[in-house]
Amino acid sequence: MPETIPQDSIGLVKSSTFHFDQPLSLDCGEILDSYELVYETYGELNESRDNAILVCHALSGTHHLAGYYSMEDRKPGWWESLVGPGKVIDTNRFYVVGVNNLGGCNGSTGPKSINPKTNKPYGPDFPIVTVSDWVESQSRLTQKLGIKQWAAVIGGSLGGMQVLQWAIDFPDSLRHAIVIAAASKLTAQNIAFNEVARQAIRTDPAFHEGHYYEHNTIPESGLRIARMLGHLTYMSDDIMAEKFGRALREGSINFDYGIEFQVESYLRHQADSFVGTFDANTYLLMTKALDYFDPAASSGSDLSAVLEKASADFFVISFTSDWRFSPQRSHEIVKALHDNDLNVSYAEIESHHGHDAFLLALPQYLSVFSAYMDRVASECTE
Amino acid sequence: MPETIPQDSIGLVKSSTFHFDQPLSLDCGEILDSYELVYETYGELNESRDNAILVCHALSGTHHLAGYYSMEDRKPGWWESLVGPGKVIDTNRFYVVGVNNLGGCNGSTGPKSINPKTNKPYGPDFPIVTVSDWVESQSRLTQKLGIKQWAAVIGGSLGGMQVLQWAIDFPDSLRHAIVIAAASKLTAQNIAFNEVARQAIRTDPAFHEGHYYEHNTIPESGLRIARMLGHLTYMSDDIMAEKFGRALREGSINFDYGIEFQVESYLRHQADSFVGTFDANTYLLMTKALDYFDPAASSGSDLSAVLEKASADFFVISFTSDWRFSPQRSHEIVKALHDNDLNVSYAEIESHHGHDAFLLALPQYLSVFSAYMDRVASECTE
Repeated sequence: MPETIPQDSIGLVKSSTFHFDQPLSLDCGEILDSYELVYETYGELNESRDNAILVCHALSGTHHLAGYYSMEDRKPGWWESLVGPGKVIDTNRFYVVGVNNLGGCNGSTGPKSINPKTNKPYGPDFPIVTVSDWVESQSRLTQKLGIKQWAAVIGGSLGGMQVLQWAIDFPDSLRHAIVIAAASKLTAQNIAFNEVARQAIRTDPAFHEGHYYEHNTIPESGLRIARMLGHLTYMSDDIMAEKFGRALREGSINFDYGIEFQVESYLRHQADSFVGTFDANTYLLMTKALDYFDPAASSGSDLSAVLEKASADFFVISFTSDWRFSPQRSHEIVKALHDNDLNVSYAEIESHHGHDAFLLALPQYLSVFSAYMDRVASECTE
Repeated sequence: MPETIPQDSIGLVKSSTFHFDQPLSLDCGEILDSYELVYETYGELNESRDNAILVCHALSGTHHLAGYYSMEDRKPGWWESLVGPGKVIDTNRFYVVGVNNLGGCNGSTGPKSINPKTNKPYGPDFPIVTVSDWVESQSRLTQKLGIKQWAAVIGGSLGGMQVLQWAIDFPDSLRHAIVIAAASKLTAQNIAFNEVARQAIRTDPAFHEGHYYEHNTIPESGLRIARMLGHLTYMSDDIMAEKFGRALREGSINFDYGIEFQVESYLRHQADSFVGTFDANTYLLMTKALDYFDPAASSGSDLSAVLEKASADFFVISFTSDWRFSPQRSHEIVKALHDNDLNVSYAEIESHHGHDAFLLALPQYLSVFSAYMDRVASECTE
């Protein structure tokens, strides 16, 4: 718990919920008759309603971008380092919106929610949602919030994929698209990592084909494996060497299967905190949304062709040691944007933090990102 | 089953077993009073007994390097592409020996073997063995075979680590050390991948703390996850893109958790064949041997210092796209060998096959490896 909330934090925040009664047709063919989206806003929407920024979250993210829920809250929102008064995404200048994705487990309708048709949790019957579905639902939230056009839509990783989809599906609804540590589609290796994680969850006997809520259990072992594996791929070899190396927890080898190396301790700790907060069915859905994302698929895998629809100015950011979505993947996006004569800024940040770098307050990252946000702000009404 | 055994194969082969009654003191402090090692030999030991080559195997390898056990045998030994008459490791010139490591599951004493003290399988009570322990046991096999000095000890991956240990522990017992796709110690990332695999096995309810034999079950789910994850790290992003890309098995997305992408099908198939043949307790032991391997640890992490003991000529080979043990890791070995003025040849093979490249018949690899083996042969008596 912070003794006092840091001066540069947005401070105490709270979530809101919108209920949607207009049926949502999903890519999978199913229809959600009604659903809720939980969201948070920081800063003030100006009179012209042109200073709004949407932040899309990644696999395990939420609508809670910044601030604390109470003085006893131990951790701030997941992008506290970038969102707040005077920060890169400056809540003194922008009206910043975070929304929990449909299918999530933090308040928006998802597998843990009660299915009105059965009065039981959806569980595995919650439809598999796609990045397109999310963007459609976010567009409806946009209308409810009275926003005609976002000053910027911003996201890292899976969040960056939503930004790309926004620029394709609703080109007039955003002036800037900021795509961080993302890719226009997963590689076979990316899909394979997701599949191993899914298999770990789905073959855990406590999974009960997704109906574990009714058995008062969770597929804890499987979800732990999924999280450890995921986390491992978010870090670079270099940062792991620096953080842990071959350091032993007790200084010597014990010749048993307890925790010996510090890195083992770290991974188990990450798994511990994750299983207490994240829903396994949501994890499965999120990895599927990642696998399926491929906006160019309908254009014969021609990313340039599908981005013809886009009109936003783009800022694309990658990190040198990100091996999940390497700079090469961002180059592909930048090239396709250039093919369409769109305004593109590109920053390749020197960092040894791997994919996780997009969450961190790295000086070079903050500096170029701030400069770009100054430009975004300069186009908003005072 | 091969209709006829290929002409260039060593052909039909069979295994032999040596029983050792001399107690073996292990690094973990335990003593194995007796044990068996299963091995295969190909070619003829010459009169001077100076044309013998030992091949050490990797994590899931065995003593069965080449040839077939019967005309109905569907697959040859794991290094068929390199071991045989007229091949790189030429059985017309060399007497080639493969041995299953202690703790293995293919005939040498290991967790599946009967513990003479309990008349039950060792299971989790089989001591954790190290690379040093293996080399010590292999040295005893060397004596039994009547070999004073190996013309070469050769190994890839974990096998290459055994070669390094041979050169340090028994410098006079080998003339050439051929270290392929290996490293002088694991990184934190390597250890982390092993730990995730171990956790998958150990948290499988069917694992029964390693006593699954007595429950007539195997921790199949956990072993499958371990294998899929391992296999994934043996391939490069590039080769997976080439082999599978984003190809769908049925041409379209089904929005369910069945097999959709070809890469998922491939991984599940790999897992299927592995669980039928490999023992989970052995998998655990092997990953521990990998984690623990660090011959320089006793010399203040100074690899050059510990290699002062070595006197063999070295051939070190790495593969450009191997991200498990990258060329950088081989450079570290080469540097330490140079520091000791040892004769070192180094080949960095251009390949997009990842770590698995060491198993494959890649032209550049075969070519440089053959040239080196000519040199090894030239020093053997006719």
